[in-house]
Amino acid sequence: MSEKIYVGVDLGGTNIKVGICDEQGNLLHTYEGPTGVENGPEAVLDRIVQYVKQIVSDSTYQWEQVAGVGAGIAGFIDLATGTVLWAPNLKWKDIAVKQELESRLGLPVALDNDANVAALGEAWSGAGAGLNHIVAFTLGTGVGGGIIINGKIYQGFRGMAGELGHIKVVPDLEAIQCGCGQLGCVETVSSATGIIRSAKDAVERGETTTLSLNETITAKDVFDAAKDGDEVAIRIVKRAAYYLGKAMAAVAVVLNPQRFVIGGGVSRAGDILFDEIRKVYAQNVPEVFTQGVDIVPAKLGNDAGVVGAAGLNLR
Amino acid sequence: MSEKIYVGVDLGGTNIKVGICDEQGNLLHTYEGPTGVENGPEAVLDRIVQYVKQIVSDSTYQWEQVAGVGAGIAGFIDLATGTVLWAPNLKWKDIAVKQELESRLGLPVALDNDANVAALGEAWSGAGAGLNHIVAFTLGTGVGGGIIINGKIYQGFRGMAGELGHIKVVPDLEAIQCGCGQLGCVETVSSATGIIRSAKDAVERGETTTLSLNETITAKDVFDAAKDGDEVAIRIVKRAAYYLGKAMAAVAVVLNPQRFVIGGGVSRAGDILFDEIRKVYAQNVPEVFTQGVDIVPAKLGNDAGVVGAAGLNLR
Repeated sequence: MSEKIYVGVDLGGTNIKVGICDEQGNLLHTYEGPTGVENGPEAVLDRIVQYVKQIVSDSTYQWEQVAGVGAGIAGFIDLATGTVLWAPNLKWKDIAVKQELESRLGLPVALDNDANVAALGEAWSGAGAGLNHIVAFTLGTGVGGGIIINGKIYQGFRGMAGELGHIKVVPDLEAIQCGCGQLGCVETVSSATGIIRSAKDAVERGETTTLSLNETITAKDVFDAAKDGDEVAIRIVKRAAYYLGKAMAAVAVVLNPQRFVIGGGVSRAGDILFDEIRKVYAQNVPEVFTQGVDIVPAKLGNDAGVVGAAGLNLR
Repeated sequence: MSEKIYVGVDLGGTNIKVGICDEQGNLLHTYEGPTGVENGPEAVLDRIVQYVKQIVSDSTYQWEQVAGVGAGIAGFIDLATGTVLWAPNLKWKDIAVKQELESRLGLPVALDNDANVAALGEAWSGAGAGLNHIVAFTLGTGVGGGIIINGKIYQGFRGMAGELGHIKVVPDLEAIQCGCGQLGCVETVSSATGIIRSAKDAVERGETTTLSLNETITAKDVFDAAKDGDEVAIRIVKRAAYYLGKAMAAVAVVLNPQRFVIGGGVSRAGDILFDEIRKVYAQNVPEVFTQGVDIVPAKLGNDAGVVGAAGLNLR
């Protein structure tokens, strides 16, 4: 009965997912339910508490075994106070999440942003398990990043370390503006959003492609077309991979990680993406940065967030 | 008498400099003498031991107060074993420096490369004192880098972290080959070597400049000409600064350091260099990476190496 368990909360705009991990980061149980953003922050916090209590009481574990609760949230978080400064998906501004949850749960609560917790999840029990120097990219609507050193998220001076989507890799003459205001961030070409934009642009220009212009085109449509040999789709996916490889090369000479873990929806493009990333990476670093270093797909899929959130309370 | 002291060794191809630091990183005494590379590694190691013993016996401290001896060496070092794999200046290959010095001195010995120890020195008692997240650039023959997190050098997977001179920032079409084999590393334009090469190229092309073609042209000549209003020299210095600013922007989104410390001979160019670096940096990062973050000159000058080497034994 002395074994500790760790509860993770993946707080999304649509659903709240909670999970219990053991001390090795194995995800034992999960529970998922609606966030109910429309009812406001108080109601969402109450719901988190309800889900957390429920998953523990439904398990074979006792409440006293819970070492802590962690939550991953897409947004800007003041780590010192545990306040969500701004979370667009939740429409939250300046919500003292850590304080509110701790008083409701009577347990230590830790927060971090979604990309960091996904990286921590992969480093704990996913594709980076057992390694001390991991850099993770999450390729979704944007390009998120997380740096895990000896099992901990590296935060930097003000918690902004690992904003890897904002490495500027596209040459100025080809660069477009990123959501962050800068030109040429890797996020502009290697996120799902960037891939979809590239596909729409190609169709609008009248390029010869099996892709078609519609509002529901997804990054997966582009990957599928690429796998079927569509030259335009192949070019778009390879371009996304090329700039990711360049960004990883920059990260490598700064941090010398042992493993790059690539997750998020775009990573499901598979070999066509990974082969190109690995090739471009190797071409852009001195050889020593390739020795013993690899670039691998994430393993935990959509569970990375809840596992990593649970891991925020590891000591 | 219980106060600990730390001995640092800056092992160069021409001179060996040793120094004693107190627990706050204040450099109390230094002693400098010839390396005598021509006599081979055994003789050099004996000389280090002689200098270390001498500086301690000449001081008011007792041998028993020495917490450890650190050495900074330009070259590739296997940190796990303390072996110098390859040090061109010393013509050393596979020398077990840590083991040899420990057996001769009867004290813990730690090694690291010159750029890392310079960074540690600045972080301990120089321009980064008291801050937890420091990135240092040393602009000399090459561009060296060091990442100091909570007072420790960050090594990464195989001790290659902080190779900041090999961030590739020059666009492919303007890039030239770096000593590392890659194209467009910041070292190719922002090192003294890069600045001198640019100056020579300009003179050879017959550009209108006060710079003249001779074998002894130095980076300082270029800075002096720039300060006197020479347009070609100004362009060369600004280009060096521009790419440094770009490299720092890439480092910022990865590590979110609080302070960048710029040392080495090129940093003596002064305001013309720093003003441009700061401008380019601010233009190339999301605003949050400028808040509370600064870019400052190194403080310890040529002492950074010996202070940082001493600091390798801090616990």
